[in-house]
Amino acid sequence: MATSHLATLIEALRRLPGVGVKSAQRMAFHLLQHDREGASRLAQALAAAVEHVRHCERCHTFSDTPLCDTCADPSRDARQLCVVETPADQAALERSGGYKGQYFVLMGRLSPLDGIGTRDLGVQALMRRAGDGQVQEVILALSFTAEGDVTAHVLSQALRAIQGPDGTPLQVTRLARGVPAGSELEYVDLSTIAHALVDRR
Amino acid sequence: MATSHLATLIEALRRLPGVGVKSAQRMAFHLLQHDREGASRLAQALAAAVEHVRHCERCHTFSDTPLCDTCADPSRDARQLCVVETPADQAALERSGGYKGQYFVLMGRLSPLDGIGTRDLGVQALMRRAGDGQVQEVILALSFTAEGDVTAHVLSQALRAIQGPDGTPLQVTRLARGVPAGSELEYVDLSTIAHALVDRR
Repeated sequence: MATSHLATLIEALRRLPGVGVKSAQRMAFHLLQHDREGASRLAQALAAAVEHVRHCERCHTFSDTPLCDTCADPSRDARQLCVVETPADQAALERSGGYKGQYFVLMGRLSPLDGIGTRDLGVQALMRRAGDGQVQEVILALSFTAEGDVTAHVLSQALRAIQGPDGTPLQVTRLARGVPAGSELEYVDLSTIAHALVDRR
Repeated sequence: MATSHLATLIEALRRLPGVGVKSAQRMAFHLLQHDREGASRLAQALAAAVEHVRHCERCHTFSDTPLCDTCADPSRDARQLCVVETPADQAALERSGGYKGQYFVLMGRLSPLDGIGTRDLGVQALMRRAGDGQVQEVILALSFTAEGDVTAHVLSQALRAIQGPDGTPLQVTRLARGVPAGSELEYVDLSTIAHALVDRR
């Protein structure tokens, strides 16, 4: 374990989220013993990503170009703006096939305990984006957790003060809370059933 | 998620052991959003390790130099050779402070199901190392698992055929199996108690 290059590699791997000393050791041994090509490829991918990946000017998601593919797509509905926490959430919405509007990616959620406030989430940029004169409805597709709820509350307060294209306030909605598709009622948690009852249609 | 550099990075991170799609996404987002310096450092550490880390000529552990620090240390007892599976196992033995001899690192263990045979473990090199005319005792510090037991059995068979410095066969020993330090007997598993009974002293 005295190898300095090996020790440096283990130390660097520990900066990955969810990776402790043991996992970092295991990763380093695996790469050096069985997959040096994978290690080289990872080194190149990291360097390339750090150099080339920036944030999209309009929606803040990761992008190689100033404008991401979704924002640059003229076929997307400019009247709807969906606010998500991460690019992974955006990808999940895209895979659902139920949304054809545009996005704004917060890259996080309000979390006072972790020191993440409205400035870190680029709320000012979201306000400018929502007030572009084309957006009529903002859909808050945030997590149904305590932090997601707080974020949704703060954002909807601010967004309702913005005027839409026809001079009326923006419509601000949130994803429906209810029983997941394919689930049997018996096994659904009580809070979800209570919400599904209130929002019945 | 359309970013090609981001997709490449996620794909490269998935080659790490124990990392699936979700973890790889989380790692990539974390590095790009919060720790680009860590990403650059990891890229450099990987490239440097791939380029400089080789195997020690004598004990096969990872080393920047042809001979690792332990093998190059003249104060280590050349009469004892400890066989371990990984550099992490070697580090654990070193930390115990109870061993001052030399090492041979197998970099794995026999595992026919995974296609790992005696050739992959460098058993020939171990035989040459053990028969250098100085080694009197080989300590097999292998795991007490099915694969570790098989490895120990195969190695001890082969090692007993080698002559030590005084013309007698090498002494081949294995770590003691017994009750761990600090444990209450009530909570120790039955197989361990049975072994501790047989090996009582």
